[in-house]
Amino acid sequence: MIKAGIIGATGYAGGELVRILANHREVEIVWYGSRSYIDKQYCEVYQNMFRIVEDVCKDDNLGELAEQVDVIFTATPQGFLAGLLTEEILSKVKIVDLSADYRIKDVEIYEKWYGIQHKSPQFIPEAVYGLCEVNRSQITPSTRLVANPGCYTTCSILTAYPLVKEGLIDVDTLIIDAKSGTSGAGRGAKVPNLFCEVNENIKAYGVASHRHTPEIEEQLGYAGDCKVMINFTPHLVPMNRGILVTEYAGLKQKKDGTLPSWEEIRAAYNKYYAGEKFVRVLDRGVCPETRWVEGSNYVDVNFVIDERTGRVIMMGALDNLVKGAAGQAVQNMNLLFGLEESRGLELVPCFP
Amino acid sequence: MIKAGIIGATGYAGGELVRILANHREVEIVWYGSRSYIDKQYCEVYQNMFRIVEDVCKDDNLGELAEQVDVIFTATPQGFLAGLLTEEILSKVKIVDLSADYRIKDVEIYEKWYGIQHKSPQFIPEAVYGLCEVNRSQITPSTRLVANPGCYTTCSILTAYPLVKEGLIDVDTLIIDAKSGTSGAGRGAKVPNLFCEVNENIKAYGVASHRHTPEIEEQLGYAGDCKVMINFTPHLVPMNRGILVTEYAGLKQKKDGTLPSWEEIRAAYNKYYAGEKFVRVLDRGVCPETRWVEGSNYVDVNFVIDERTGRVIMMGALDNLVKGAAGQAVQNMNLLFGLEESRGLELVPCFP
Amino acid sequence: MIKAGIIGATGYAGGELVRILANHREVEIVWYGSRSYIDKQYCEVYQNMFRIVEDVCKDDNLGELAEQVDVIFTATPQGFLAGLLTEEILSKVKIVDLSADYRIKDVEIYEKWYGIQHKSPQFIPEAVYGLCEVNRSQITPSTRLVANPGCYTTCSILTAYPLVKEGLIDVDTLIIDAKSGTSGAGRGAKVPNLFCEVNENIKAYGVASHRHTPEIEEQLGYAGDCKVMINFTPHLVPMNRGILVTEYAGLKQKKDGTLPSWEEIRAAYNKYYAGEKFVRVLDRGVCPETRWVEGSNYVDVNFVIDERTGRVIMMGALDNLVKGAAGQAVQNMNLLFGLEESRGLELVPCFP
Amino acid sequence: MIKAGIIGATGYAGGELVRILANHREVEIVWYGSRSYIDKQYCEVYQNMFRIVEDVCKDDNLGELAEQVDVIFTATPQGFLAGLLTEEILSKVKIVDLSADYRIKDVEIYEKWYGIQHKSPQFIPEAVYGLCEVNRSQITPSTRLVANPGCYTTCSILTAYPLVKEGLIDVDTLIIDAKSGTSGAGRGAKVPNLFCEVNENIKAYGVASHRHTPEIEEQLGYAGDCKVMINFTPHLVPMNRGILVTEYAGLKQKKDGTLPSWEEIRAAYNKYYAGEKFVRVLDRGVCPETRWVEGSNYVDVNFVIDERTGRVIMMGALDNLVKGAAGQAVQNMNLLFGLEESRGLELVPCFP
Repeated sequence: MIKAGIIGATGYAGGELVRILANHREVEIVWYGSRSYIDKQYCEVYQNMFRIVEDVCKDDNLGELAEQVDVIFTATPQGFLAGLLTEEILSKVKIVDLSADYRIKDVEIYEKWYGIQHKSPQFIPEAVYGLCEVNRSQITPSTRLVANPGCYTTCSILTAYPLVKEGLIDVDTLIIDAKSGTSGAGRGAKVPNLFCEVNENIKAYGVASHRHTPEIEEQLGYAGDCKVMINFTPHLVPMNRGILVTEYAGLKQKKDGTLPSWEEIRAAYNKYYAGEKFVRVLDRGVCPETRWVEGSNYVDVNFVIDERTGRVIMMGALDNLVKGAAGQAVQNMNLLFGLEESRGLELVPCFP
Repeated sequence: MIKAGIIGATGYAGGELVRILANHREVEIVWYGSRSYIDKQYCEVYQNMFRIVEDVCKDDNLGELAEQVDVIFTATPQGFLAGLLTEEILSKVKIVDLSADYRIKDVEIYEKWYGIQHKSPQFIPEAVYGLCEVNRSQITPSTRLVANPGCYTTCSILTAYPLVKEGLIDVDTLIIDAKSGTSGAGRGAKVPNLFCEVNENIKAYGVASHRHTPEIEEQLGYAGDCKVMINFTPHLVPMNRGILVTEYAGLKQKKDGTLPSWEEIRAAYNKYYAGEKFVRVLDRGVCPETRWVEGSNYVDVNFVIDERTGRVIMMGALDNLVKGAAGQAVQNMNLLFGLEESRGLELVPCFP
Repeated sequence: MIKAGIIGATGYAGGELVRILANHREVEIVWYGSRSYIDKQYCEVYQNMFRIVEDVCKDDNLGELAEQVDVIFTATPQGFLAGLLTEEILSKVKIVDLSADYRIKDVEIYEKWYGIQHKSPQFIPEAVYGLCEVNRSQITPSTRLVANPGCYTTCSILTAYPLVKEGLIDVDTLIIDAKSGTSGAGRGAKVPNLFCEVNENIKAYGVASHRHTPEIEEQLGYAGDCKVMINFTPHLVPMNRGILVTEYAGLKQKKDGTLPSWEEIRAAYNKYYAGEKFVRVLDRGVCPETRWVEGSNYVDVNFVIDERTGRVIMMGALDNLVKGAAGQAVQNMNLLFGLEESRGLELVPCFP
Repeated sequence: MIKAGIIGATGYAGGELVRILANHREVEIVWYGSRSYIDKQYCEVYQNMFRIVEDVCKDDNLGELAEQVDVIFTATPQGFLAGLLTEEILSKVKIVDLSADYRIKDVEIYEKWYGIQHKSPQFIPEAVYGLCEVNRSQITPSTRLVANPGCYTTCSILTAYPLVKEGLIDVDTLIIDAKSGTSGAGRGAKVPNLFCEVNENIKAYGVASHRHTPEIEEQLGYAGDCKVMINFTPHLVPMNRGILVTEYAGLKQKKDGTLPSWEEIRAAYNKYYAGEKFVRVLDRGVCPETRWVEGSNYVDVNFVIDERTGRVIMMGALDNLVKGAAGQAVQNMNLLFGLEESRGLELVPCFP
């Protein structure tokens, strides 16, 4: 039985970790860390867990936690883990970090976009970017630190990855228009996240400045073996869960001057995703919708070619709390402990 | 492996059966009946099932189905099963009927409230009212026909049952004000169920005339061993899932002229529900909310005594598609086949 | 031109006052009081007012305000106005108070239910309870202080008023089950009011303890000339605006032992509301719905008789921010200044 | 008093015309056309109009209507008006057509994108494209036929218009990602528009094939005096009203090789919109949101320059039923009859 601790267990991503791990037969949560609710029963905060979780919330003591558990999930604000992580801790415990602290290899870019100083850049090289479908081979029982990808980034990258990797699109033209449910904004008590402010509204935010931009650029840069600079625009949608990305890019002409066909693009998706349990390339003509992945670890992707403009419109949908956060974290944990990758993640999407 | 067939597999309750049974290790669905989508892939109708269910929809042939499966779930309009059921069919297969056809013992009351003639009243006496927590002993491997309770009725009955059974309330004063999410209205293409008609609105409907009224009255009558006549008012709420009932009743004075205490009422709830997995009596002061049971088979109940008026306010919440329909149907099926009652129903409520 | 000042202009009720008064040709708002946003442009807080309101927010100085305006609207927390009101202020300016400070005549009841000491009980006798349809004659140019009724109370009282006044129902049996949109919870940054906490959920709250209870009891007591004690249960609905009340009461037998007929009850509603612009008694069989009054000052009411149980089910719907707050405040202001009562309130309900 | 008739009065756009015209002092609606509800009281269909509109619905008799009214609004399916319009009718009455029948000058493009044959192309040259801010001078008392622009198109065009007109962007790079509330899908009883299908979901639809594409291209082509070919992707958002567009385009280098500055782009917007009542160019850094224009005739626009990619991100928001349909139709009507353009459109956006 793997002993797990969660720091930030009462945020939405933390709560989703609890929900998923409750049905994971190889894992036991022994530490529900929540600075805001210390000594309060976990199920008083999340009544859905009444009679399922009996534990009380504990504080954030990373050192003590490292003694007691095999894996720590940190669902914490940016900078939290970077400020506390030490070689001693890493020598005792595996960490799956749901924050952005170790996602970006270039610490200057991290510090610029996040506006904070990185307190432990020495661990960045070691951290594996935990996008399992891309980096699976690096996530092994000998890995100590996984940087769990962001919700927007997971969706954005997986939707475009095969076409970037295969050189089918001109990455300089890539534009990502993303839409997210409100759980992505977290559980902090802020006026802009009140029901009446979000309901019956849609807005863009963080235009040309959202922090997931460099993360997407770095990862797609590895895929395309080139420098990538994109426009990424997130929008807030009045729903609880779900991210949809709509991505636009110019198709590269083939040597004969024609554009890639639908079959060729489809083949690229199949090449990378045919064997992937959690990536579903939809049938021709079917657009991804967030409702079809809700509550599950799936990413649904598809594309349309616009022959008039020579562009491909790629679309992807996932549940931001599952494949975009807690589900992917469990997927990473499974790999870290040599378990079947999908263990505990046989979650059937819930509709309606 | 139990072979199951579903008639009405593309309605919301049918879809929920598919979702739940997908993770039930002892059951295999071999017939997805849907008159509207014959020969269409099931996952084209419900894209959440893409790559999970490969089958195509079939027609409603009850006779042929009886040959092929061990259990049939009928998630069909009122009168459908009553019009087709025969002794021959019942001799071959078990049936869990999610419609109201066999719920009410008095066929005149059925015909009056539903406005249709009952075509096979001879099976009514045999049918067991499948409210497992109350009638568990009658749902056994020798049972052939289970009338799966309605969504409003399950919630309404379980919320009041211990107090009626123990004679703590004056049943003549019982008033049930119920609120339901919109999936309870079904998947029919009707203007009143369009997004813009339901969203940003709340309304009562079926006031003093809703068909779940006599079902509640009959069952609470058995519990209280008396004739019960109530007011039941359903309301439509702009959300997908969930039913909340708020029930009002005068407390009966004890012999010493005082009212029952909180402890005495709580003891009544404990007497019937302490050992029940799917009924959660909440802690003092915590009101049931639909969000805490969403996606699960739980019913959350609690109560408040108003000493000023001498009434008790009882509250109950469930997911209308799970405990109010498909989940309870699976619970019944487990009992019918001698399986553990909660098999396949270890569904952790999903929040947010 | 009437000069108006608003204290609490950036709350939802305050914002609605601004919206309504923007189209009121006899009124000019000269003071947008908002302690939280002093010196900030009003339209930076409420961007809907961009290019419509140019003013900046000011502090809450009641004394200075009294010098500058003809009428003050206080959309403030309980106790605010009671703590500041003086005879000097009242001698200079009319006040329409949207808080509960002067609604309840018995100061002990106020202090018990609100849990605070009333700082200026000497003004309670003078305050007129501003339910225009009931107390119109007392709201005149010589009135100085109007206690604007609560949202739940306006809806609850107007729905039952004719039947209580005419003695058609047994008030001891009156039960009010109320449902409100989330703007009623205010604009404070609290976790329970976050989008993801409210959306896809319904819950009761303040069961047997909500502060609007004694206000309803007092006013219906005046109507029925008797002591009234009710059950009042509010519920939170995932929508922005709207209150629906469902009220249950036993009908009193007439001298001949029969119950009042539909026509007799309808006549009672007509007696009080036939000439009322803002109360719409709906056609037989039509249930009030919040969507049909949204954005307007209407209250829609109707009823159903249940002959089985001998009860009448009364229903009422209004927009909590309009007839339940700002609209009624403007209606009161019109009366205070001898204007036509509906001036500025010709708001057509907005659907969808 | 202008006499108006509406064909399609019980659709959402028709209903909004009724709401707006109810407060327009120079217009009287004398014909509520609705084929589906002939002889039924209008307020039975839209209960918000109870006690406001007493009329019954009539059929669609265009000829008879032309005799009785001064202006006809057709809020009808594509092809309806084109199939009935004659010179005789046009000689008697002005028409504001809310369908697409006369919006596109090139009838081949119309027939290709709409998949129907145009029955009266002879009137296309005469029809004025009623985007008032652009074509105001052509909408005069001598105009007989106005093609009221589409909802997506109004928002898409007005958001980009100044930059296209001034040649600041490379129109070949223009990509429009649009998001709409569900009232845009109309009031037809279709499964995809049911509450449970739309709620808690976002999806793209009509990718690379939506009919508003050629309309946007034609109008921006006039503005830029060039052929325009864009990508336009609409999305369905779980809210009643509102359209948000997010538009991406490469900025053209100036002669000195630098990109236009924020001030230069802002100046372009000011040049065209500074005097426009219904277009609000927001302050720097403020993104348009649909909630701030709800219920009003405003379009809010703004932009962000991304210096990294050399693109400008333009954003626009409007209420699809007002500025995107009925409000703009009334704006056109005002111009047709020589009234002040904003008459009846002093609608303050309603929040929350």
